[in-house]
Amino acid sequence: MKQTWSIVATLLAITLATPTQAQFAKPEDAIKYRKASFNVMAAHFGRLGAMANGRMPYDAKTAAENAEIVAVMAKLPWAAFGEGTDKGDTRAKPEIWKEAVKYKDAADKMQAEIVKLNTAAKAGNIDALKVAFGPAAASCKACHDAYRKD
Amino acid sequence: MKQTWSIVATLLAITLATPTQAQFAKPEDAIKYRKASFNVMAAHFGRLGAMANGRMPYDAKTAAENAEIVAVMAKLPWAAFGEGTDKGDTRAKPEIWKEAVKYKDAADKMQAEIVKLNTAAKAGNIDALKVAFGPAAASCKACHDAYRKD
Repeated sequence: MKQTWSIVATLLAITLATPTQAQFAKPEDAIKYRKASFNVMAAHFGRLGAMANGRMPYDAKTAAENAEIVAVMAKLPWAAFGEGTDKGDTRAKPEIWKEAVKYKDAADKMQAEIVKLNTAAKAGNIDALKVAFGPAAASCKACHDAYRKD
Repeated sequence: MKQTWSIVATLLAITLATPTQAQFAKPEDAIKYRKASFNVMAAHFGRLGAMANGRMPYDAKTAAENAEIVAVMAKLPWAAFGEGTDKGDTRAKPEIWKEAVKYKDAADKMQAEIVKLNTAAKAGNIDALKVAFGPAAASCKACHDAYRKD
């Protein structure tokens, strides 16, 4: 069982790995890194949400800049779910590694929505941003609900 | 004195703010965000260093991708040094706010070196990367030595 788990974890890391293949000295470093990249992504995503929902004045340039940062960040965390990173200071559920293919699909779905959001933010009008923000936020939430502990 | 401090902190936040002006609900959120952005930057910067120093095989595409992420991240932390973020779960020294102009100069210097590093990484040869990496690393270290607690 332990070996199967190890093979799954390794396959997951390979499957999720981006071209900027992460190399972490310790599993804790990977966990810290993926949390950090989600944190930065969420901060900028939140500003887009504030504009889309009228809690912050809409500014096309600010929206485009925040969306671009979100698009860069959205590619990063996945390489940091390698072997040994399922335990420690993390809210990641074991399902991430048990359902590696489903998890990858969810991560891919999120990234696809973020690409659309980035294009919409660059269109320079708040209506495009509103249309794209909802599905993007839903793709974040779907993963949080399924794969993140409360 | 408290008021002077408050004015300095506010001026610093305005001075350092990027166009992606941070808006944080609480000082803790700003602290967490700036640490997260430094963490992601350091992870990718470390891979450039590993290549420049021969600890990791040189690959032009990987170098360019990592440098691009570093360049994006290098712009982010500065907007998160606003009022009230000088205390809490942070290693930031009070000198950041006491010597706001000097701190901004150091942050600008780092960003200028990262721009050069990004250009060098995109040149596609390891010698250019080696030349640019040293001064970039020195600009990180200068700030850590002066403004970060051990």
